[in-house]
Amino acid sequence: MSPNTDTIIAFSTPPGISAVAMLRLSGPEALSIVLSFLSVHALAPRHATFARFTDNGNIIDEIVATYYPAPHSYTADDMVEITCHGSLYIRQHIIDTLIDAGARLAQPGEFTLRAVRAGKLDLSQAEAVADLIDAVSPAQHRLAVSQLRGGYAQKLSHLREQLVDLTSLLELELDFSQEDVEFADRNQLLATIRRILDETQVLLDSFQTGNAIKHGVPVAIVGAPNVGKSTLLNALLNDDRAIVSDTPGTTRDTIEESLLIDGILFRIIDTAGIRQATDDIERQGILRSRKAQEQASVIIHLSDTSSPLPAPDGNTLNDGKIHIHVVNKSDLLPSFPPPSPLQPSSCLFISALTGEGLDRLRQALVDALGVASRSDILLSNVRHRDALLRMRSALSAAHDELLGHIPADLVAIDLRDALYHLGTITGQVTSDDILDSIFSRFCIGK
Amino acid sequence: MSPNTDTIIAFSTPPGISAVAMLRLSGPEALSIVLSFLSVHALAPRHATFARFTDNGNIIDEIVATYYPAPHSYTADDMVEITCHGSLYIRQHIIDTLIDAGARLAQPGEFTLRAVRAGKLDLSQAEAVADLIDAVSPAQHRLAVSQLRGGYAQKLSHLREQLVDLTSLLELELDFSQEDVEFADRNQLLATIRRILDETQVLLDSFQTGNAIKHGVPVAIVGAPNVGKSTLLNALLNDDRAIVSDTPGTTRDTIEESLLIDGILFRIIDTAGIRQATDDIERQGILRSRKAQEQASVIIHLSDTSSPLPAPDGNTLNDGKIHIHVVNKSDLLPSFPPPSPLQPSSCLFISALTGEGLDRLRQALVDALGVASRSDILLSNVRHRDALLRMRSALSAAHDELLGHIPADLVAIDLRDALYHLGTITGQVTSDDILDSIFSRFCIGK
Repeated sequence: MSPNTDTIIAFSTPPGISAVAMLRLSGPEALSIVLSFLSVHALAPRHATFARFTDNGNIIDEIVATYYPAPHSYTADDMVEITCHGSLYIRQHIIDTLIDAGARLAQPGEFTLRAVRAGKLDLSQAEAVADLIDAVSPAQHRLAVSQLRGGYAQKLSHLREQLVDLTSLLELELDFSQEDVEFADRNQLLATIRRILDETQVLLDSFQTGNAIKHGVPVAIVGAPNVGKSTLLNALLNDDRAIVSDTPGTTRDTIEESLLIDGILFRIIDTAGIRQATDDIERQGILRSRKAQEQASVIIHLSDTSSPLPAPDGNTLNDGKIHIHVVNKSDLLPSFPPPSPLQPSSCLFISALTGEGLDRLRQALVDALGVASRSDILLSNVRHRDALLRMRSALSAAHDELLGHIPADLVAIDLRDALYHLGTITGQVTSDDILDSIFSRFCIGK
Repeated sequence: MSPNTDTIIAFSTPPGISAVAMLRLSGPEALSIVLSFLSVHALAPRHATFARFTDNGNIIDEIVATYYPAPHSYTADDMVEITCHGSLYIRQHIIDTLIDAGARLAQPGEFTLRAVRAGKLDLSQAEAVADLIDAVSPAQHRLAVSQLRGGYAQKLSHLREQLVDLTSLLELELDFSQEDVEFADRNQLLATIRRILDETQVLLDSFQTGNAIKHGVPVAIVGAPNVGKSTLLNALLNDDRAIVSDTPGTTRDTIEESLLIDGILFRIIDTAGIRQATDDIERQGILRSRKAQEQASVIIHLSDTSSPLPAPDGNTLNDGKIHIHVVNKSDLLPSFPPPSPLQPSSCLFISALTGEGLDRLRQALVDALGVASRSDILLSNVRHRDALLRMRSALSAAHDELLGHIPADLVAIDLRDALYHLGTITGQVTSDDILDSIFSRFCIGK
C-alpha cells in the first residue's frame, strides 16, 4: 500500500451544542497543521496537552490536544485529536481553519478505511466497527464484538486455511502434470470439501438469526378484528401506544415499536384485523397487514377464546417463518390456565388485559430465535452471506467435478473461485466498489 | 471549601450515534472506579491509554482513558476521561456500569461548579463558559471569550479595588471615631465615588448592545400591506423563505430567521402588513406584528415609493429602540439613487427585488448597534446588570450621604452594600439560589 499523502479531518462526536466536541486529523501533516494554531510548540506523544487555539492572534478556544504518532494510532498514520468546547461557532471555526491550512474533510469511514489499508483491521472487522456503533441491544453489541474481536474472524480463517491447503495440493499436481501422477487422494479431497461445505452451511443457516438480531426481529401480530392485537402490543410495551377500542377495525395503519427481551431487540408490528373490508381505508389497512406478515420473521397468530382453535399443524407452515399461536382473553375463561384439552402444546393462552401468560409469550419469542441457529457464531452481514453463497456454489462445482474425474486444472479454477469469494469477506481481495459501499454507511469521523 | 466526597459522571459529548463519545468522571473515586473495569492496572497522568472496558469478563468496548490528577484538572479534583465508541448500547452500558460502581450522574454544569468552588474560575467566568458553548456568531463568541479570559474580569476587579479602598478609608475613621478625626478628604471621596459611578454607567449603557449580541439582535420589518416586507426578508436571507405574492395580506404569522452580518447575529422578523383587518386571521396576524415591534431592538419601517415619506423625526422616537426608515421599490423610480430632495438623510432607498441598496441597509443595521455602546467591554448578562444597578443605587446613596455630612458609619453601610452587590457578579459573595439558577442552564457534562 502506498502511504497516505493527504491529511484528513472530521469531528468524531455528534453535532449539537455540548460541553465538548472532539475532532481528529490523520495524515502526514496532522501534527504540523495543528501546531501552527496552538499556544504550545510541541505535543508529546499520547500526552493530553492543554493549549489555546488561536487564529491570527484571536483566542478561539482553550482545547486539549493529543498526538498519536504513526504507526501506533487507529489509522497507523500520524493522528491528532482535539477536544474543544462544543459550541457551533467554535466547532465550525476550528475545522474551517484547519481545512484552510491544508487538511481535507474526511469521507464517512475514511479513518477506518485507512486502518484497513494499513492492515490494522480486516474488512469484516471494519464492518463490525460500524455495527458496533449502530448497536442498540446487548445482542447486537455481542454480535459486533464477536465479529470485531471474537470467533468470527477465526472461523473464516479456518475455512480459508482448509481451502488454501486443498488448492495447493491440486496445484502441486498441476506442476507435475506431465508426469501424470495424482498426489492427492481423491476421496480425502472430497471429504475435505464436504467438511468445508458443512461448516459453510452452518454459518449460512445462522444468517436468519444473526440478521434478525442485527436489525431487530420483526414480529407481526395478526388475526381477526377485535381479538385484542393492539391491546397485546400495548401490554408487551407496557405503554399506551396503540388506540384500543371495542369497535372492530380500530387499527388502520400498521404500528411498529421496538422491545428488548433478554437483550434481543424485537420489532413488534401491530396490524389491522383481517376480514372482509367495509371501506377503502380498511382495505388499505388490511393490505398493509398482509405486507407486514410477509416481511416478519416471527408471526403471532392471535385469536380469542370465542374463535375456533387453529389447526394443530399451524406452527409448521413451510415458509421459513416462525409461527406462534396465541389465544387471548383467557381471563374470560372459567379457569386459568384452561384445562388441558383446551390448551394444545402449540398454543399459548394469555390475557393481554390482565398480563396473564405474557411472560411465557416473551420466552416463546426468545426461544423461537434460539432454535433457528445451530451455531455460536452468527452470520449477520448480507454482503458476507452473498460471498459465502458464491463460495459454496464454486465449491459444490469443484466437488462434482472431482467426483466426475474432471482434470485437476479445471477443478483448481473452481477452488480458486471459492477462495476469491471467501477473500472478499475479509478483504484479502477487494475492489473500490466494495470499499465504497462498505464505508459509505460509516459515521463521519470514524 | 470542603473537598468533594462523591464522584460525578456524565457524557460531555452530545447524544446520538457517532464515531466516538466522551464521558468524564470527577471526584476522589474517579480513578479507582474506572480502573476496576479496564484491562490495564494503572493510568499514567495525562497519558491517553488504550484499554478494554470489560464487565464480568465481557468486552464492552475498546476505549481510550486519560487521567487528570488533582489539582491540575478542570474541576481541581481527580478526573478521568473515557473516549468510547458512540453507540447507544455502549454509552448506556458504560455509564450504567460506572454508576453501579459508585459514581453519581452529574447535574448540568456540576463540573464547572466544582471548578468555581475550588477557585479555578470565578462565577462570571463560569457563566462565560456556558455563553461560549452557546455562541453561534463570531460576536457572541468574542463576548464570551472576553468575559472568560479578557477585559471583563479586569474591569470588575478594578471597580472592586476602588470600592474596597474607599470603604477601608471610611472604616479606618470609624476605628478612631472617639477621636473625631476625618482621615479621608470628603471631596476626594466624593470624586472617587463619582468616578466609579461613571464607569458603572458606561458598563450599564453597554448592556443593550451586549445583550443584543448575545441573544441576536431582534429586527422587526413593519409597514403597510404589500410594500414588500416578505420580499425584503427573502432578499436579506438570500432565500425563498417567506411566501410572496401581489395580494396584500399574504403574510399572516410572523416569520423569524437568523442572519449574520459582519459576524453579528440578527433575528429578522417579517410581520403582517398593518391596516384595517379584513378578517379574523388577518386581525390575529396584525396583533402579532405589533407584538414583534414591541419586542424588537431595531425596527425597519418599510414603505414604498408610492407612499408618503415618513416624518423626518421618525428616527428619534423616544422608546429606546433604533428606527430605520426604508423606502422599497426604488427600481420603479425614474433614476436611482433618487435625486436628493427625494432622499432625506434619515431614509434609505432600496429595491428588495433587484438588491439595490441592500448593502447600505446591512451596514445601517451594524452601525445602529455600534453607536449604542461607548464601551469596548460589553455587559451582556442580565444577572450582572441587576447587580450593577443595585450597586449603583447603594453607591449613589453613599454619595448623597457624604454630601449631606451624614456620619461615616452610615455611609460605610451603603458602601458595604455596594461591595456586596458587585461581589455577587464574580461570586465573592453568593448563595445556593444564585448557583442553582446559573448552573441549571449548563450542558450536562460541563
